[in-house]
Amino acid sequence: MIYNIDHVAIAVHDMDEAIDHHRRLYGAEPMWREDVEEQGVDEAMIPVGGSFVQLLAPLADDTPVGRFLAKHGEGLHHIAYAVPDIDAALDELRSQGARLIDETARTGGRGAKIAFVHPATFAGTLIELVELPDE
Amino acid sequence: MIYNIDHVAIAVHDMDEAIDHHRRLYGAEPMWREDVEEQGVDEAMIPVGGSFVQLLAPLADDTPVGRFLAKHGEGLHHIAYAVPDIDAALDELRSQGARLIDETARTGGRGAKIAFVHPATFAGTLIELVELPDE
Repeated sequence: MIYNIDHVAIAVHDMDEAIDHHRRLYGAEPMWREDVEEQGVDEAMIPVGGSFVQLLAPLADDTPVGRFLAKHGEGLHHIAYAVPDIDAALDELRSQGARLIDETARTGGRGAKIAFVHPATFAGTLIELVELPDE
Repeated sequence: MIYNIDHVAIAVHDMDEAIDHHRRLYGAEPMWREDVEEQGVDEAMIPVGGSFVQLLAPLADDTPVGRFLAKHGEGLHHIAYAVPDIDAALDELRSQGARLIDETARTGGRGAKIAFVHPATFAGTLIELVELPDE
């Protein structure tokens, strides 16, 4: 069902500082950065091999990432699995009793179809499914 | 300095249950599993694209992963970056003021040279550096 780790997301308070710090430590630069208003985040995608490290900074305190930071502080936020067919993946997960945050896919960054799977489903881990648009 | 996400690690209480559950949800199977006594973990590596999802279960409560589970419960534990030269990477990180858990590389699973970078270094995120052995 999954063919790649699309990205691993890290929640940060200050995006400019985090990008600069990650560059100095690991020599890696974001390929792009965008505000995803629907999710209330500023996201930066740093390519690493065939995947990305995604930095997430909240656009406001009262957003999912804002609340995560208030509760946990900065740190690992979720893993995103690339899937070929997100609707089929959601059907399969539903049939296995998964608890879904998004019952149907919605549009995320890069014009991808995305859906989140609740951390109660597997090992306290927030999972995002990503179906990338055809090029 | 980094050329791939080698793996993303998830701490779990019960390895057999976690492997089975992950298989049912995502159809992905571990390529191998081994006890790494030095780190006090049972680790299973599930290939996903060019990376792995690593499941970590503690061999005893009084181990780093055992203490993580007691404090945080199951969840995302660390990201591992593959580097071509771990000694050079540690020198570079040290020159940037990074706080290192391992000042010099040691041997981890798969016979890799590994070192951990303290979460205080970047965004509360535990980072592992991995230099894979030549095939």
